[in-house]
Amino acid sequence: MAKEFVVGIDVGGQTSKIGVVDAKGDVLAQTVIRSDTYGDDAGKFIAALGAAVKECIKASGKEGQIRGVGVGAPNGNYYTGEVAFAPNLAWAAKKAVPFAKMLSSELDGIPVSLTNDANAAAVGEMTYGAAKGMKNFIMITLGTGVGSGIVIDGKVVYGHDGFAGELGHTTIVRNNGRHCNCGRSGCLEAYCSAIGVARTAREWLEMSDEPSALRDVLDITSKDVYDAAKQGDKLALRVFEYTGKLLGTAFADFIAFSAPEAIVLFGGLARSKEFLYEPMKQTMNEKVLSIWKDKVKIVFSSLKESDAAILGASALAWEL
Amino acid sequence: MAKEFVVGIDVGGQTSKIGVVDAKGDVLAQTVIRSDTYGDDAGKFIAALGAAVKECIKASGKEGQIRGVGVGAPNGNYYTGEVAFAPNLAWAAKKAVPFAKMLSSELDGIPVSLTNDANAAAVGEMTYGAAKGMKNFIMITLGTGVGSGIVIDGKVVYGHDGFAGELGHTTIVRNNGRHCNCGRSGCLEAYCSAIGVARTAREWLEMSDEPSALRDVLDITSKDVYDAAKQGDKLALRVFEYTGKLLGTAFADFIAFSAPEAIVLFGGLARSKEFLYEPMKQTMNEKVLSIWKDKVKIVFSSLKESDAAILGASALAWEL
Repeated sequence: MAKEFVVGIDVGGQTSKIGVVDAKGDVLAQTVIRSDTYGDDAGKFIAALGAAVKECIKASGKEGQIRGVGVGAPNGNYYTGEVAFAPNLAWAAKKAVPFAKMLSSELDGIPVSLTNDANAAAVGEMTYGAAKGMKNFIMITLGTGVGSGIVIDGKVVYGHDGFAGELGHTTIVRNNGRHCNCGRSGCLEAYCSAIGVARTAREWLEMSDEPSALRDVLDITSKDVYDAAKQGDKLALRVFEYTGKLLGTAFADFIAFSAPEAIVLFGGLARSKEFLYEPMKQTMNEKVLSIWKDKVKIVFSSLKESDAAILGASALAWEL
Repeated sequence: MAKEFVVGIDVGGQTSKIGVVDAKGDVLAQTVIRSDTYGDDAGKFIAALGAAVKECIKASGKEGQIRGVGVGAPNGNYYTGEVAFAPNLAWAAKKAVPFAKMLSSELDGIPVSLTNDANAAAVGEMTYGAAKGMKNFIMITLGTGVGSGIVIDGKVVYGHDGFAGELGHTTIVRNNGRHCNCGRSGCLEAYCSAIGVARTAREWLEMSDEPSALRDVLDITSKDVYDAAKQGDKLALRVFEYTGKLLGTAFADFIAFSAPEAIVLFGGLARSKEFLYEPMKQTMNEKVLSIWKDKVKIVFSSLKESDAAILGASALAWEL
């Protein structure tokens, strides 16, 4: 029987989403399992994941017709198939786990392809989403952190070691920059992630007496800043303007690298599009080398949020 | 007859170098013509170039055996075959010249492939030089300006429009940066080119009374700074240390993009290796994301200076 279906898996810190997908990008069946209840026992988690994948395939009615499984996971390495030293995954935080091999063995040999979550998102956008038909673009995921997937000539860039595309850890503030989770300072991620936005708001509130609805919030999140901006809160609006300008500044340098057709934005913080887009676009065009002025698009992911991660990972499996 | 030879041409602001090259990278015959005596008449220059190429082929004894011609030129575009808006070439400063097409027609239809000079250098290093066997590296040319050629999976990155790899125009100083020739400020090129090094020396001399041999030099060039450093001049040595640190800082960000095996340096200023290497390497490893610490090599071009540009351009012709 022709193998015309694939499985996409998005491994996250708290949950892992699984879906069976057809060639058009329709999700035929899906399920979710927890990722955080296995301690540091990678084998136990992968066994549970394998069982859930089998269930999901069964529910889709496509047993025996699965060509392969694509997985997007934090710190997933395309070359080695390992998930290695991923701070948010207890079972891979302090070691390299041969994830692809272990999962394939749970699935009686169905081939498994693995990459990091941002690269998976880039493949997803290229195959089914906002980057359909594009051969050169840069995917930026604005979530808890800032991730990236770079596509050149229709292929995700993995680099010499499989770790290419860590644009969240390029330096946006060179002097006296904020400490970043990676141990360095001034990284784009420290400013332009969901956590960075909340941090900017908190810093600014401390530094002035300016009235703001955010003063009544205990543990400010980026969602709180968004809600305040929606209500017209001036400080919250300025936080997004500042964040957008930093992103635009960073994009201007990214463009000088790979001359993409577009920058594609994805992730929770990208939903603040209405506040980020203008300052981002204006600053990018102000700072970019003149040959690219007003030439590079900024587009937002068009995939349904719930399916996006699964589709991204599944797209990888078609190459198998 | 099998066509087993190619021609490489390096078009520069003052002279253009031409060579007939065999598959091993041996230059069988070479010649040079001026590039700066044709005013804005591109047709006249290309006719003269074509005549010189024919002469050179004749001198090599390989008439009828030329597979193609590869050209490296400032602002040369691989996709369009045009040399466009190149400030240092009078005949292409204010327009786009269909260079590849015009030269091919002068050469009775021999195919011509064109790219910018830094990309040509990258292809040269990959085919014959320090990057032989590497599939992922970044070539940085430290000359009058700072150019770059990025190689991913064994291929030069051209991007959506053919202009990818302008790393000399990424921003190294974000606040109050030096004005750059490109019209923007704070570019790597404004600090780490030959002109940038001379500028740093002049600025520092003005800003202090520190004794330095350079105070006796009228129009300081990077060569003067090098000579002074050789004599142990402290200010000159610090100029190179500063330049090396900025390069290392920039490299740390470049690595986050494409995870290269090595950064390959080429060009006049790269000859100051003895003063640049240590601060460059140390700063790069200090600032790079921990997964790449002490993993990315910095290597210097191993091609003979006189042949390098021709070989780089000629390597392009093998793809024809």
